[in-house]
Amino acid sequence: MLIKVRFFKCGILQCNVVLNEGDIVTIWIDPKRVFLVKLAKGKRLDTDKGYILYDDIIGKEYGDVLKLSRATAYLLRPILEDIYLDLKRPSQVLYPKDVAYMIYSSSVEPGSVVIEAGTGSGFLTISLAHFLGKEGKVITYDVRRDMQETAKFNASVLNLQDRIEFKLKDIREGFEEKGVDAVFLDMPSPWEVVEKAYEALKPSAALIVFVPTVNQVEKTYLEMEKKGFVEIHAEELILREYKVKEGATRPKNVGITHTGYIIRGRKSIKTS
Amino acid sequence: MLIKVRFFKCGILQCNVVLNEGDIVTIWIDPKRVFLVKLAKGKRLDTDKGYILYDDIIGKEYGDVLKLSRATAYLLRPILEDIYLDLKRPSQVLYPKDVAYMIYSSSVEPGSVVIEAGTGSGFLTISLAHFLGKEGKVITYDVRRDMQETAKFNASVLNLQDRIEFKLKDIREGFEEKGVDAVFLDMPSPWEVVEKAYEALKPSAALIVFVPTVNQVEKTYLEMEKKGFVEIHAEELILREYKVKEGATRPKNVGITHTGYIIRGRKSIKTS
Amino acid sequence: MLIKVRFFKCGILQCNVVLNEGDIVTIWIDPKRVFLVKLAKGKRLDTDKGYILYDDIIGKEYGDVLKLSRATAYLLRPILEDIYLDLKRPSQVLYPKDVAYMIYSSSVEPGSVVIEAGTGSGFLTISLAHFLGKEGKVITYDVRRDMQETAKFNASVLNLQDRIEFKLKDIREGFEEKGVDAVFLDMPSPWEVVEKAYEALKPSAALIVFVPTVNQVEKTYLEMEKKGFVEIHAEELILREYKVKEGATRPKNVGITHTGYIIRGRKSIKTS
Amino acid sequence: MLIKVRFFKCGILQCNVVLNEGDIVTIWIDPKRVFLVKLAKGKRLDTDKGYILYDDIIGKEYGDVLKLSRATAYLLRPILEDIYLDLKRPSQVLYPKDVAYMIYSSSVEPGSVVIEAGTGSGFLTISLAHFLGKEGKVITYDVRRDMQETAKFNASVLNLQDRIEFKLKDIREGFEEKGVDAVFLDMPSPWEVVEKAYEALKPSAALIVFVPTVNQVEKTYLEMEKKGFVEIHAEELILREYKVKEGATRPKNVGITHTGYIIRGRKSIKTS
Repeated sequence: MLIKVRFFKCGILQCNVVLNEGDIVTIWIDPKRVFLVKLAKGKRLDTDKGYILYDDIIGKEYGDVLKLSRATAYLLRPILEDIYLDLKRPSQVLYPKDVAYMIYSSSVEPGSVVIEAGTGSGFLTISLAHFLGKEGKVITYDVRRDMQETAKFNASVLNLQDRIEFKLKDIREGFEEKGVDAVFLDMPSPWEVVEKAYEALKPSAALIVFVPTVNQVEKTYLEMEKKGFVEIHAEELILREYKVKEGATRPKNVGITHTGYIIRGRKSIKTS
Repeated sequence: MLIKVRFFKCGILQCNVVLNEGDIVTIWIDPKRVFLVKLAKGKRLDTDKGYILYDDIIGKEYGDVLKLSRATAYLLRPILEDIYLDLKRPSQVLYPKDVAYMIYSSSVEPGSVVIEAGTGSGFLTISLAHFLGKEGKVITYDVRRDMQETAKFNASVLNLQDRIEFKLKDIREGFEEKGVDAVFLDMPSPWEVVEKAYEALKPSAALIVFVPTVNQVEKTYLEMEKKGFVEIHAEELILREYKVKEGATRPKNVGITHTGYIIRGRKSIKTS
Repeated sequence: MLIKVRFFKCGILQCNVVLNEGDIVTIWIDPKRVFLVKLAKGKRLDTDKGYILYDDIIGKEYGDVLKLSRATAYLLRPILEDIYLDLKRPSQVLYPKDVAYMIYSSSVEPGSVVIEAGTGSGFLTISLAHFLGKEGKVITYDVRRDMQETAKFNASVLNLQDRIEFKLKDIREGFEEKGVDAVFLDMPSPWEVVEKAYEALKPSAALIVFVPTVNQVEKTYLEMEKKGFVEIHAEELILREYKVKEGATRPKNVGITHTGYIIRGRKSIKTS
Repeated sequence: MLIKVRFFKCGILQCNVVLNEGDIVTIWIDPKRVFLVKLAKGKRLDTDKGYILYDDIIGKEYGDVLKLSRATAYLLRPILEDIYLDLKRPSQVLYPKDVAYMIYSSSVEPGSVVIEAGTGSGFLTISLAHFLGKEGKVITYDVRRDMQETAKFNASVLNLQDRIEFKLKDIREGFEEKGVDAVFLDMPSPWEVVEKAYEALKPSAALIVFVPTVNQVEKTYLEMEKKGFVEIHAEELILREYKVKEGATRPKNVGITHTGYIIRGRKSIKTS
């Protein structure tokens, strides 16, 4: 689990690349051995390929290499996907491919203000905060305090907490904001809050919904159609990873075959 | 085709929503009738569902509705996908799903500085400029002046030209930058410039490549492996769109079955 | 359109390979120019690549080659897929990939007796008759006389009419057979006849259903579960065709993205 | 593992449905508990849901039901897929979906004579023998005696041994047959024997090849093009299984993402 830390944001010129106590590092040995750690003097990471003393990392920089007894370890600057791997848990269904497309499709940009419900593990929350920048804002609703505490902690690890507002509230009672740039829903009954999302959105702005079943797709899509959204799309992204070997390249044989569906539409101004 | 215009960036509070001459608008009638236009007094749009006088749009706001003789038209704030639809041409293979995943996987953020080659129609260029914000920078290389002129024009339409630097140069001679946050390649022989990309990248930063054939995947992946990249992935995204109807929901019957593959890896510091 | 003809069944030793008047031939020029014809003296086929006199085909054998003015034509023994291509029409949703899997999954064999409803264009009917052999039997129900007439005609072209029994009847009133080896359903409301299928089947035999929407999948699957079927599967087959070129192999860019879902289960003996 | 047994072929009228010692039965408890057994007096099957005495099965019929201490077991007539599940092993890559499409695409029929190489676990061999009927013949080549012994055993379990001829030979030296109705290849370097397959085939008959990598697809396809095959297709079948639940239907989350590619073409008579 991650611990609070100043994070990896650094401009191209003034970036301090020397790793210090408190920095977080992705230690990558191979695709099955990826570790997201916070550096602390005197601590160590034990793996079946050998151990790493954090003191040996301190003073190195991102991109550097360490020799273990039975492998090589690479010290990488954490990217969103590393964080995703670390967050993974049973309740997590949103994958990077989905989050990428949801954010892109919404056309939010640095400085946008968006609403999200529910918070869940905070993976979409953190991704949004990352892309919206310092001037952006993510307001995230959930009814479960424990989920929000975890997400809050994860966000603070990445020093993104100032871009996020956590609200412990059932959004079936409505959102507290008006004129937001996008609403993202990842919850069991999104059709129940389509109208609330409509009210919170700026005209022409996007509602983006993620659901795992086709029944939810149908209900949500039809409700959006009825409540004033236009240009509605229901889509699914299937990711195939390839195993590349000279003269023997092919897709991997076993993997994720389904995560969920993305429904998106834009608010039109209803004419009564 | 688009024309130069001040663009739709507006904060949540100070956004001027009244449409004026010079603004660009997505006119959405149905999935097959989507038009990206620049408002000009006295002009009109003719469709098989009726005509629209631009003078009738001026004074309305994004999200508003217009009645045509045989349909309803919605005035939407353009999103990246609308621009994509307008840019589409035979040489265009990068789809929104691909661009979304490429940008996300690179973990670039507002303020990042990235390199791209080739420029092509400028769709990835514009998308990057959008997400990197005012303080970000996209340096885009191409050997074809005509392509760059088109991309330059498209970028200026969206008022993103200040975030983009166009360079007319064969990158097999190397990039002029060092320490960039990501390199994106969409060109026929990316394996020839993997080493050049390595030199231009900040340690631990990502190289993201898009290619249409499996042979290119293999060559690029193996070259990246050889030249110091780690955590390399070769992936493909298949998008399925659904046709939603009450009690009769199903995927669309005909569509895009392939765009290309995405290969990505991170620069490790080579130990000689 | 096909015409009645003695067909291509011939054993490995006694097969008369010399093509005569009345034989049917697949004339294959390229993937977009495939013609299924019945040879008749004095007739001709006109294509944009040149014409073919049927008199020039008579006397040749399957596998032979003809030179046209602007292309080469191959004379092939018709296979089920050629017939499929010739039958194609708006109402046709069952593709060879689906029919192949449906027949295989049912584990029918030469000599089996099966029921099918509805007949449709007869493509599944003909495929079943082909694989069940001379001693097999396909009993096919439909409420539309015109569909059955077309299917009957198509079957007679392939000389398969003796293996097929056409019944013009609404199967919601029940099937007239008992103890059949498999039941195949390709109709709008299969869940309404699941019980009828159960009654017609031999214990342990398979019910195989094809439907285009996910709503139909759910209704059919649940009804099968309720009515005594076990080992029920709901599956979908996605076919990707590749464009192979030396050093530039990739999936085709545009194609069929959905045909339908296959639900299958086996009859258990209900214990009351 | 299976044991020699008289098999389940029975016509619709004269089928002896009472299960006896020596019969094989698929015992289906749930999707994860499927057992293919040969009945023998005094023996038993132990599962974590309870045990079954074979003496309790003898005297029942296919489709019947048995109560276990913690579940219900269904006694099913084995279908090809059950046999597939029992045969599964690391070297097995051909799945039912692939075998179904390969057999269908070849348009073989009861009575056809076909060649196959290599034999492997014998799953394609058995499937072919099943569909070709008593008058059909499968000649299967392999260089490994152990593989052929296993396949021979499996075939005899299903009483299909009289339809299959096993040949222990490296087919790079050529096939011993001429004029066969189809050739099926499932081997590492199929392009090396494309010419041999051509020589063995009847004009217009099909060569069907299965390979796991894209490199093999390219080599095989190009060699077939060069050696006189026409109407060549390279295809891949992706199977998605659905989890059906009332109001919550969706594809399974994890599964097989790749098995292999199927290349097929028909022999034209070369004109020198």
